[in-house]
Amino acid sequence: MQSSVEEYNRYREKMNEKLLSAGNNKIIKRIFNLDTNTYMDGALDARTKEMLGLVASMVLRCDDCIKYHLQQCHEMKLSTDELMEIFAVANLVGGTIVIPHTRQAMEFWEDLQTS
Amino acid sequence: MQSSVEEYNRYREKMNEKLLSAGNNKIIKRIFNLDTNTYMDGALDARTKEMLGLVASMVLRCDDCIKYHLQQCHEMKLSTDELMEIFAVANLVGGTIVIPHTRQAMEFWEDLQTS
Amino acid sequence: MQSSVEEYNRYREKMNEKLLSAGNNKIIKRIFNLDTNTYMDGALDARTKEMLGLVASMVLRCDDCIKYHLQQCHEMKLSTDELMEIFAVANLVGGTIVIPHTRQAMEFWEDLQTS
Amino acid sequence: MQSSVEEYNRYREKMNEKLLSAGNNKIIKRIFNLDTNTYMDGALDARTKEMLGLVASMVLRCDDCIKYHLQQCHEMKLSTDELMEIFAVANLVGGTIVIPHTRQAMEFWEDLQTS
Amino acid sequence: MQSSVEEYNRYREKMNEKLLSAGNNKIIKRIFNLDTNTYMDGALDARTKEMLGLVASMVLRCDDCIKYHLQQCHEMKLSTDELMEIFAVANLVGGTIVIPHTRQAMEFWEDLQTS
Amino acid sequence: MQSSVEEYNRYREKMNEKLLSAGNNKIIKRIFNLDTNTYMDGALDARTKEMLGLVASMVLRCDDCIKYHLQQCHEMKLSTDELMEIFAVANLVGGTIVIPHTRQAMEFWEDLQTS
Repeated sequence: MQSSVEEYNRYREKMNEKLLSAGNNKIIKRIFNLDTNTYMDGALDARTKEMLGLVASMVLRCDDCIKYHLQQCHEMKLSTDELMEIFAVANLVGGTIVIPHTRQAMEFWEDLQTS
Repeated sequence: MQSSVEEYNRYREKMNEKLLSAGNNKIIKRIFNLDTNTYMDGALDARTKEMLGLVASMVLRCDDCIKYHLQQCHEMKLSTDELMEIFAVANLVGGTIVIPHTRQAMEFWEDLQTS
Repeated sequence: MQSSVEEYNRYREKMNEKLLSAGNNKIIKRIFNLDTNTYMDGALDARTKEMLGLVASMVLRCDDCIKYHLQQCHEMKLSTDELMEIFAVANLVGGTIVIPHTRQAMEFWEDLQTS
Repeated sequence: MQSSVEEYNRYREKMNEKLLSAGNNKIIKRIFNLDTNTYMDGALDARTKEMLGLVASMVLRCDDCIKYHLQQCHEMKLSTDELMEIFAVANLVGGTIVIPHTRQAMEFWEDLQTS
Repeated sequence: MQSSVEEYNRYREKMNEKLLSAGNNKIIKRIFNLDTNTYMDGALDARTKEMLGLVASMVLRCDDCIKYHLQQCHEMKLSTDELMEIFAVANLVGGTIVIPHTRQAMEFWEDLQTS
Repeated sequence: MQSSVEEYNRYREKMNEKLLSAGNNKIIKRIFNLDTNTYMDGALDARTKEMLGLVASMVLRCDDCIKYHLQQCHEMKLSTDELMEIFAVANLVGGTIVIPHTRQAMEFWEDLQTS
């Protein structure tokens, strides 16, 4: 059986490939490139930047973006206590409409521990 | 078989418990507390406040938030005519991007009548 | 000297006239018409609908829309206690990004008392 | 088996009918009417307007609205190269949070070719 | 005396220069570059793309972005009738919260005719 | 003469006091309280949390919220290089509609250096 993490990653990769090949659109390619480069170590380290990406995705309520950054945060050994404080900022700034996305984020975070 | 109402409530309760226990985060707990207290009778009655919560959830296009307030409105005996006028305000102010959420809200409202 | 209320209304009326006359666009005219009709007494009374319009404008953070509905609420004798509870719902649901708009709303509400 | 296009259209039509009959709400009816009339040939042709509707739906991240306009664009013989340039504008203006919606749009676009 | 068009352009250019020089940030530079390239002639012509950029800016309610695209549309000889139909799509899709931004857009459009 | 920083702080404090005293609304008071507590040292340090608050405010395009967090970041000795990387994440995730808010943020950041 496939985990929610595997399912998310497979669909994401499959469709990204199609977007990058279809029409051979340079702007889309460059946006995808930027998306990788922005989160690399710089004046701020990659770990901090992933936290920034996560909180931005949460207040904009983009479940798929949240999942992506949760995976990155998981790889960078973010603790659940740290995660909860990012959730707190997102729910405070973005309001209770962020709660349903926080529920889904929590579920995906648990799946990441076991996958 | 489980209705959409039961499914929604079960997932919501399960994940809320996890959010409240994980990391023992005080800010999250206090936001959840506020979420209950804000809709209590005051200068405005609870029924009016639930309508306010519903229209706010609709223009912000948060399906789960909409379902929550639909349940509260249902318990407070909102009529379908009244509901339709809330839908009208939400679709006027928020535009036609609110229509798909209104379709889902209508379906959940019907499920509430029979659950 | 001109109050903030007069200034708001004068600009709003001047530009609405231009929008309605320029190009003679039927869709714009019908949207403006709908905007009037939606807030009339129906299954819900006009007072409740103006409160719905206000909270929707607040969570969507539209200062001019907020001013419009504040005027309507003022004419319909909303009390400051009632207003504060609408502010509370808006700030809870929409988060702390609503606070700056609440500050401006409070200032306009005070201007309405003296204009 | 039912395609994603058929499934989308069937649900959309079923719920639109319910919204239009329930409560007999005039505002909702007029908004639905406007939604049809706005995209008709005028100073701009219908094809251009459907592209405008698509890009607006994308930056507002409304998957169902995107599907609707993709169908219209498909009927009006938009090429995949043209579509990709609309995707590019949407992802540039709206940011990387639009990417997941672009993935879904791409999948639906493919389904439209074979349905 | 300085027109609103000159004022907008001067501030925009002054601050863009500071953003591009400060910290010498490559990501910001590349986003600015993309912003220019996205609107060039391609499968869709530049005129259509500017209309797409305008409607996207309107539904996202970004006054400064609207002004930018209005200038481009003005240079590409968009007629006021065509503009009004873009306004119509934006107000329909984005709702009446777009109206105040449409009023400001109209005023800037008039300033563009005389500047 | 008064700087933009002083002007911002004076208005903010004046209106916050009115909001907290008017109607004596407990929900508003508790949201303001939470707003202070959320950004205190915890599993994440206050400096990181202010960066989270800043990027969240930027993608939600709330100029006043941005100014508040810029002040906090300035007090916590954020460098301009670090700031530029937060700007980069915000403009990537939120899109080019964030650019005008980034211009204003840059201007306020400069004012903070000299005030």
